[in-house]
Amino acid sequence: MIPFNKPYLQGCELVNIAEVITTGKISGDGVYTKKCHTFFEQKYGFKKVLLTTSCTDALEMAAILLDIQPGDEVIAPSYTFVSTVNAFVLRGAKIKFADSCRSNPNIDPEQIENLISLRTKAIVVVHYAGVACDMDRIMDIANKFNIPVVEDAAQAVDSYYKDKPLGSIGTFGTFSFHETKNIIAGEGGLLVINDDKFAHRAEIIREKGTNRTSFYRGEVAKYGWVDIGSSFLPSDIIAACLYGQLQNMDDIQNKRKELWNRYFNNLKNLTTNNGIALPNLSEFSTNNAHMFYLICESLEQRTSIISYLKDNDISSVFHYLSLHSSEFYLEEYEGAELSNADKFTDRLLRLPLYYELSFTDVDYICQVIGSFLS
Amino acid sequence: MIPFNKPYLQGCELVNIAEVITTGKISGDGVYTKKCHTFFEQKYGFKKVLLTTSCTDALEMAAILLDIQPGDEVIAPSYTFVSTVNAFVLRGAKIKFADSCRSNPNIDPEQIENLISLRTKAIVVVHYAGVACDMDRIMDIANKFNIPVVEDAAQAVDSYYKDKPLGSIGTFGTFSFHETKNIIAGEGGLLVINDDKFAHRAEIIREKGTNRTSFYRGEVAKYGWVDIGSSFLPSDIIAACLYGQLQNMDDIQNKRKELWNRYFNNLKNLTTNNGIALPNLSEFSTNNAHMFYLICESLEQRTSIISYLKDNDISSVFHYLSLHSSEFYLEEYEGAELSNADKFTDRLLRLPLYYELSFTDVDYICQVIGSFLS
Ligand SMILES: Cc1ncc(COP(=O)(O)O)c(/C=N/[C@@H]2[C@H](O)[C@@H](O)[C@@H](OP(=O)(O)OP(=O)(O)OC[C@H]3O[C@@H](n4cc(C)c(=O)[nH]c4=O)C[C@@H]3O)O[C@@H]2C)c1O
Ligand SMILES: Cc1ncc(COP(=O)(O)O)c(/C=N/[C@@H]2[C@H](O)[C@@H](O)[C@@H](OP(=O)(O)OP(=O)(O)OC[C@H]3O[C@@H](n4cc(C)c(=O)[nH]c4=O)C[C@@H]3O)O[C@@H]2C)c1O
Repeated sequence: MIPFNKPYLQGCELVNIAEVITTGKISGDGVYTKKCHTFFEQKYGFKKVLLTTSCTDALEMAAILLDIQPGDEVIAPSYTFVSTVNAFVLRGAKIKFADSCRSNPNIDPEQIENLISLRTKAIVVVHYAGVACDMDRIMDIANKFNIPVVEDAAQAVDSYYKDKPLGSIGTFGTFSFHETKNIIAGEGGLLVINDDKFAHRAEIIREKGTNRTSFYRGEVAKYGWVDIGSSFLPSDIIAACLYGQLQNMDDIQNKRKELWNRYFNNLKNLTTNNGIALPNLSEFSTNNAHMFYLICESLEQRTSIISYLKDNDISSVFHYLSLHSSEFYLEEYEGAELSNADKFTDRLLRLPLYYELSFTDVDYICQVIGSFLS
Repeated sequence: MIPFNKPYLQGCELVNIAEVITTGKISGDGVYTKKCHTFFEQKYGFKKVLLTTSCTDALEMAAILLDIQPGDEVIAPSYTFVSTVNAFVLRGAKIKFADSCRSNPNIDPEQIENLISLRTKAIVVVHYAGVACDMDRIMDIANKFNIPVVEDAAQAVDSYYKDKPLGSIGTFGTFSFHETKNIIAGEGGLLVINDDKFAHRAEIIREKGTNRTSFYRGEVAKYGWVDIGSSFLPSDIIAACLYGQLQNMDDIQNKRKELWNRYFNNLKNLTTNNGIALPNLSEFSTNNAHMFYLICESLEQRTSIISYLKDNDISSVFHYLSLHSSEFYLEEYEGAELSNADKFTDRLLRLPLYYELSFTDVDYICQVIGSFLS
């Protein structure tokens, strides 16, 4: 069976972890956390970053830093993972769901302005599959109404909008290092803080609402309770694993891109006139090859393809379920029909894509798809 | 310099981690997470446990499960770590702070009943230094008013109240595996669920408010958004580290107890008539030797001892700062003076205690304290 995903660890993760274990300094904010911070700040020019226990937690930090209060509204795409919005719902926000673009799952900028009200406290965008949202248009709208933007870049490590790294454009960016991502640490995330005014409070909120970070820098004689907060910092063991991945990032990314291109080239002819669409890359975005997906003609077709692939020892999977029609939100939802989000819910199909996948595997998968379609 | 703490890792942590890394299954709820769950359920008879990213996060899960709403009140000791209460403040609760006992930092059961109102939704108790609170009295009061109890057992792994393991008595128990604890995983925690009615929702809340756990058990065909929630599950790398510690738990605990007893026996004569008190163990609690502390005569004396020990290459530290007089809470605080909490804030002094500390070290530390006092 060709699995849908196979986490790839190269060896230096364990070497780094062994080093941390030897020192015993395995709580948060150790040597490897700092190395990871420096890596991201230097490679992408991020002003300030903080490792977190997950992207979910980085989003929660953003919600706390933006001081989201009960009754506040937050605009977000419906076609996304629950964490994108749950982080804000936990603070009491009401979510105003926007539709996806017709051509890809990213939020449709056209929809944003209509959803803005006096209570809108944030716009959260998701760079689906690592492909950038139309950030110039989104930032224009956000700036016009003075609303902060959070970039959920969970899938978007090492990807760019024009020449700007994703995660660097909104007020905050959030990344995931979950096992299903390009760069992994099991569970892990990163908060990017692009507005200096949040930097100090971010440290406090991440350290259980204490000024412990100032204490360890020698700025105060004891540390105490100064704010709300949680424990958002991962063990240095996790940071050591992540740093091992960062050391091999170029290799990992190159391999994924080659596989992605192989899929694309194999499938581009096969899928003409079959009602199946391939990913639509925009001119303003790079592709970090996080995911290769097809848009099927219908839910029925997708179900048949999944089962046909399975019969041929290939695992393929659907993805998100529109959040506006989830069990949790449906009753509360008062907005319009979101037909593109529903389309991707029903028709998007993800194919295996991971470092150890071979060209032979990709060719075989494409051949099976071809034989299904013929 | 004898440090205050030195995290102890025996070797099998890295062996376990290497195994997890080899399989690549490093996200949450993997093989080692299940091994840790089984360990705790079997050794202590806990009904249901869930590993979390920290004790802070386990407390947050408890607050969500208890459905704490803005305006609800929660009773907790003032002399504790901020996480004990921040978890509830994040849900909008107002904290009613209780004083410590005169003889030890645990919550004074006498104080609890006076603080109960119609809005009281939880009583949180902290087993300071792993020594049990007076649980029979506390549970009597809680049951009389039908208020759930959360046992913050952050420091109390492997300790008992009468014959009941700490963490098993209230509605929930929470443990910490932070580097500063007896059993460590860098950052990590455990939620113990003693009331079955919370077990299903706990799984959902821990998995970002989705029924992903049911999905992976094959109970539903896809998973979706069904509740609020966060990402409370640690990477299996953390679980693998923790399991390594659990494999050596008896050795770790025995060594700590020997060191603790050595301190006690060395100091018990030395400190008579010097205004210094040693830890007061109650007849109903075991001692898990999490901490060895002294109660000094005054803040001034404590400051002098810390500095005298430092001059003799020994690191010793104070501990919590009363939360009712913290920067964050002081203005809001309307309750009585909490003189025992303030006493421990000013006068409690923690001495080095860790696996690799030797009897010679302990004897030396006690001798230095003796020479200070003479
Ligand atoms: C009941 C309870 N409930 C919940 C949780 C949550 O657990 P999780 O972490 O798993 O989420 C905890 C965890 N707390 C632990 C430790 O107990 C705590 O001591 C502290 O440890 P540190 O790394 O800071 O080191 P240290 O060596 O304890 O002190 C180092 C110096 O810091 C000064 N200090 C200390 C304190 C505490 C304070 O307020 N103010 C302050 O100025 C004293 C020294 O000079 O923080 C930890 C997270 C808890 O105890
Ligand atoms: C934009 C965005 N923002 C924030 C975060 C938070 O990041 P942190 O984790 O760091 O906090 C994420 C992270 N999400 C990832 C993955 O993107 C996501 O796919 C899923 O991965 P899984 O382990 O479940 O595996 P899978 O192989 O993706 O699917 C396996 C099967 O599950 C079915 N499925 C899937 C979904 C998603 C769903 O809703 N319902 C559903 O029935 C499809 C398959 O058959 O969960 C992850 C945490 C995110 O994407």
